[in-house]
Amino acid sequence: MNTTIETILNHRSIRSFTDAAISDEQLNAIIAAGIAASSSSMIQATSIIRITDPNKRAALAHLAGAQPYVAQAAEFLVFCIDYQRHYSISTEIKPEYTELALIGAIDSGIMAQNCLVAAESMGLGGVYIGGLRNHPHEVDALLNLPPYCAVLFGMCLGVPAQDPQLKPRLPMAMILHQNEYQPLNKPLLAQYDQQTMAYYQQRSSHNKHQDWSNTVTKTLSKESRPFMAEYFHSKGLMEK
Amino acid sequence: MNTTIETILNHRSIRSFTDAAISDEQLNAIIAAGIAASSSSMIQATSIIRITDPNKRAALAHLAGAQPYVAQAAEFLVFCIDYQRHYSISTEIKPEYTELALIGAIDSGIMAQNCLVAAESMGLGGVYIGGLRNHPHEVDALLNLPPYCAVLFGMCLGVPAQDPQLKPRLPMAMILHQNEYQPLNKPLLAQYDQQTMAYYQQRSSHNKHQDWSNTVTKTLSKESRPFMAEYFHSKGLMEK
Repeated sequence: MNTTIETILNHRSIRSFTDAAISDEQLNAIIAAGIAASSSSMIQATSIIRITDPNKRAALAHLAGAQPYVAQAAEFLVFCIDYQRHYSISTEIKPEYTELALIGAIDSGIMAQNCLVAAESMGLGGVYIGGLRNHPHEVDALLNLPPYCAVLFGMCLGVPAQDPQLKPRLPMAMILHQNEYQPLNKPLLAQYDQQTMAYYQQRSSHNKHQDWSNTVTKTLSKESRPFMAEYFHSKGLMEK
Repeated sequence: MNTTIETILNHRSIRSFTDAAISDEQLNAIIAAGIAASSSSMIQATSIIRITDPNKRAALAHLAGAQPYVAQAAEFLVFCIDYQRHYSISTEIKPEYTELALIGAIDSGIMAQNCLVAAESMGLGGVYIGGLRNHPHEVDALLNLPPYCAVLFGMCLGVPAQDPQLKPRLPMAMILHQNEYQPLNKPLLAQYDQQTMAYYQQRSSHNKHQDWSNTVTKTLSKESRPFMAEYFHSKGLMEK
């Protein structure tokens, strides 16, 4: 076990930050770490919008579903799929394929995680903000995103003012299959549900009487942001 | 600069490996690092299929477009969006939303990058294999993926038998915008094109007389895996 793996295994999403700033040098290292990540065919289909304008921060915190840490964190970064960059080089490119939106989403996740791990390695903390997709058109307009550029998620970064428990993850034997897909291991799931029930009951904030199976069933039985396909199409993405 | 950031900044995709194995302890740390990553609403929508069967490795190396390192690497992992897990808990879940495929793609990227950084921190190397999406139905059948579970990408891991140059990335000023989208900075792009032209001419393998603008224009002016939308739909994903 080395310090990098220790940092990664110690990850908790941080939603409460001190007033301390992130230095230019730290921010530079965080973004450089993101840029150093792998990129499918070197397409480099991500743009990051750093939000320093307090009015925009407040608007984004509201649009994300009243997540005040979006306004309070030292830094807030918005990760976008960006094929406008390529289209500005040549109008012959065809950004409309689902494949390219997938590449944008996967590669943005890869890039963002490098940023988060770099930040955490310096003692900073952060949290992904998928809630920006609650109102993608409004976020898009606020950031003046051009065609072929679509908002994916945000990331708060700052000096942690909380030290939350580790959240239990699915057991490795449920995530990792060998040679072919293995059906759901129900005894293992039952153990995990007991563990998550205990976690949700004991945690300091938002405690609830639910296990993982209840929680995800509730989340996934609803419509999941049913406007996302239309939003992507409106940006000229995922049309084919 | 700490060792974690050094590891991340030193990333090169490794496509040539020694015969050395990855120990169980190392593999365990790599997968544990992936599982420790953030997951949108704790949905945990990724499954990893570890391929140890040499026949399956050979078949995947072929399907990925003659990438022999898929067969040769010490480990080969296939990352899949997986809502079958949740559907096995409750048939009331609605996996068909584009939003959920996006979450699966982003979160799989985040998880996979934790795996790769963990591996690199131990002196191992690796490369993402998007080429599995050349023949998604065939890969899917080979891995026996059920409905609501779709192949995204692979990852080769092993002990590096090469030490390639760092590949130049887009300048930070082109990736990082402030408060709103900034149009393409053409002078900066011209500098980057000079840099990539020099890189592609000098690199030891696959050298070519092209810059980044030429390369991505050529890549993106073609149809990009036009069957991906149909593949996802066939898995019950991205239908809405």
